[in-house]
Amino acid sequence: MSLMQSPPGAETVIDGRRYLYFAGTAYLGLQGRADVIHAACEATRRYGVGSATNRAWFGTTPPLLDVERLAAELMGTEEAFYYVSGYVGHHILLAALAEQFQAVWIDERAHYSAQEAVRLSGRPAYAFQHRDPADLAARLKADLRPGQRPLVVSDGVFPVLGAIAPLAEYARVLREYPGAALSIDDAHGLGVLGPNGRGTLEHTGLIARGFNGGGDEAAASSDGPTLWLCGTLSKALGGFGGVIPGSRAFVERLKAASHYYDAASAVPVPAAAATARAIELVLAEPALRTRLWENALVVKRGLGGLGLATDDTPVPIVCLTIGSAENMQRIQQELMRQGIVIAYAGRYAGVGPAGALRLAVFSTHTAAMIQRLLDALRALL
Amino acid sequence: MSLMQSPPGAETVIDGRRYLYFAGTAYLGLQGRADVIHAACEATRRYGVGSATNRAWFGTTPPLLDVERLAAELMGTEEAFYYVSGYVGHHILLAALAEQFQAVWIDERAHYSAQEAVRLSGRPAYAFQHRDPADLAARLKADLRPGQRPLVVSDGVFPVLGAIAPLAEYARVLREYPGAALSIDDAHGLGVLGPNGRGTLEHTGLIARGFNGGGDEAAASSDGPTLWLCGTLSKALGGFGGVIPGSRAFVERLKAASHYYDAASAVPVPAAAATARAIELVLAEPALRTRLWENALVVKRGLGGLGLATDDTPVPIVCLTIGSAENMQRIQQELMRQGIVIAYAGRYAGVGPAGALRLAVFSTHTAAMIQRLLDALRALL
Repeated sequence: MSLMQSPPGAETVIDGRRYLYFAGTAYLGLQGRADVIHAACEATRRYGVGSATNRAWFGTTPPLLDVERLAAELMGTEEAFYYVSGYVGHHILLAALAEQFQAVWIDERAHYSAQEAVRLSGRPAYAFQHRDPADLAARLKADLRPGQRPLVVSDGVFPVLGAIAPLAEYARVLREYPGAALSIDDAHGLGVLGPNGRGTLEHTGLIARGFNGGGDEAAASSDGPTLWLCGTLSKALGGFGGVIPGSRAFVERLKAASHYYDAASAVPVPAAAATARAIELVLAEPALRTRLWENALVVKRGLGGLGLATDDTPVPIVCLTIGSAENMQRIQQELMRQGIVIAYAGRYAGVGPAGALRLAVFSTHTAAMIQRLLDALRALL
Repeated sequence: MSLMQSPPGAETVIDGRRYLYFAGTAYLGLQGRADVIHAACEATRRYGVGSATNRAWFGTTPPLLDVERLAAELMGTEEAFYYVSGYVGHHILLAALAEQFQAVWIDERAHYSAQEAVRLSGRPAYAFQHRDPADLAARLKADLRPGQRPLVVSDGVFPVLGAIAPLAEYARVLREYPGAALSIDDAHGLGVLGPNGRGTLEHTGLIARGFNGGGDEAAASSDGPTLWLCGTLSKALGGFGGVIPGSRAFVERLKAASHYYDAASAVPVPAAAATARAIELVLAEPALRTRLWENALVVKRGLGGLGLATDDTPVPIVCLTIGSAENMQRIQQELMRQGIVIAYAGRYAGVGPAGALRLAVFSTHTAAMIQRLLDALRALL
């Protein structure tokens, strides 16, 4: 197994060697920023590693509230609920929404964590074809029973595929179903997409309708589904843990519905303190995000120039399938020999049987670094 | 909401006041130890907050391997799998055991996390009466279908009730069922119970049969169930996150079966580094554990002297139900006014409708501190 021996960044030390690193999810390059690390140490010296109890029983340390306040500020909501891992986001979200849906339609390529959360909800669940509003419409027609309110679940941005879910089209399909809900895990959209970094809902324009109990829910739901989201702070946002921003009332509902609030150890102090500082940086430095978009487009145009199909969204993830699994592994390994890391995803939600190559771009990659990647790829193809 | 403004310990600062603290789960008092905090800072400076990717894709940082090596050493197993929260332990464990059971019997008062993991397994599930081997036997007879192998699930130590599950009796009941399995979440047993701190299996003598794929599984299963456990490192063990120790083969199976390995951000660096150092302390200082047992017995004898019923196990948790919810809240609040914190559990797995008072003892409580608690309680009853 490979060991990562430095913070993840444009350059990352793996197994003793410094690589040009186009993998993982440290899109804004914050995980190794000196003041993020300083914040973690400072707080740990004051508050210890963790409170060793749950949030409801004296276990809330000050950095946790900082994260919730700053995440709410970033997302434009009244409050937020911060928990230990983005992986359990939909688990927590669906617990709070339990009374609001009777059956679920889920993108067939949604992340494992969403699939598991849907299973845990105990409701009948149907898959629809990946990013296909027409198939969603057909399957709703076929399978929705009278009186049921449907919930549609998807990733906002698919973590390996890099594709954005067509949320506005889903919302249009759901206009026919009063009381319908649309819920996304925006792990790879938060901090990346939208003028304010609010993610896929902002990018697709849906955010104006309100989400997670915010905005004019009644007005919004008369004209399409209510909107719900969970996200992570471990990727673009540079820290660790999951978050659900929302109205005060909805955040209270989350805490009452989920035992991650009252029966699990609170998020550890250093992770929370680092996360709070990293969100402050995201708020203070919008150029991190615009640089990321520029870098994503430079990489995508460059790949296009090599004859590789890509989209032109600002998502900093490119998924390439180039021939057989063996061929893709060869490319990944040859790049590594040349000091460049990309990931080969042999098995992952949404990836076909041969797997795929996944490239990730950061705001901290320089033009020269990107050129080196493109040159190396050109020589290998 | 109360804020914890110091590490949890015998004395803990809450909302600006230093309290004598008999709550939470920092049983060995390690969360605020200087060298645990130092380890967290040191590692964060080297490796950043986290790898921002999963374990399978370059996301394993050195402190994670340290935790796995040390947890295996503590538990006497070949290896261990370390993940982000003890809450998801049974989720991961049951994913790996999926082929080995067709129906589940679960203690009616087991922790929420176990209940959810059983639901997620999708197998038919039956509750049996709390800590009642005879009821378990009766329900197995009534509900087990021909050809089904049963899995019995329980907490090792119940987190609020403080009771130890009668695992040896369950194992005897399960002798009648070839291929049966018995699985516990030992969040509150690990590091606390047994001569080596290996938890409830060691305390009940079952550990000699092997667990999690270790030991002579074939021989053991001819004479009772196979044994399985998950645990946490956030409580007695002084760090953060969950752990499943086991044979090399079983740990490989866990990593293949659970997407916490290949599709979730790895445990953050400072939490892992603190945890590794805390386990080293637990291994180096067995007196932490014997002092904890002594303190638990002093508190329990003292409460017995006040006419309050307690058991005489070394579990450092005492659950008291004294009259109505209002009365218990009064006691809790009056103690707080006097500078002593215990918890009132109004709603928790296993707790009745009036709730319960929960006292926790640490190895760092002095005789004088315990006497102060007992004196205050005597005056209040």
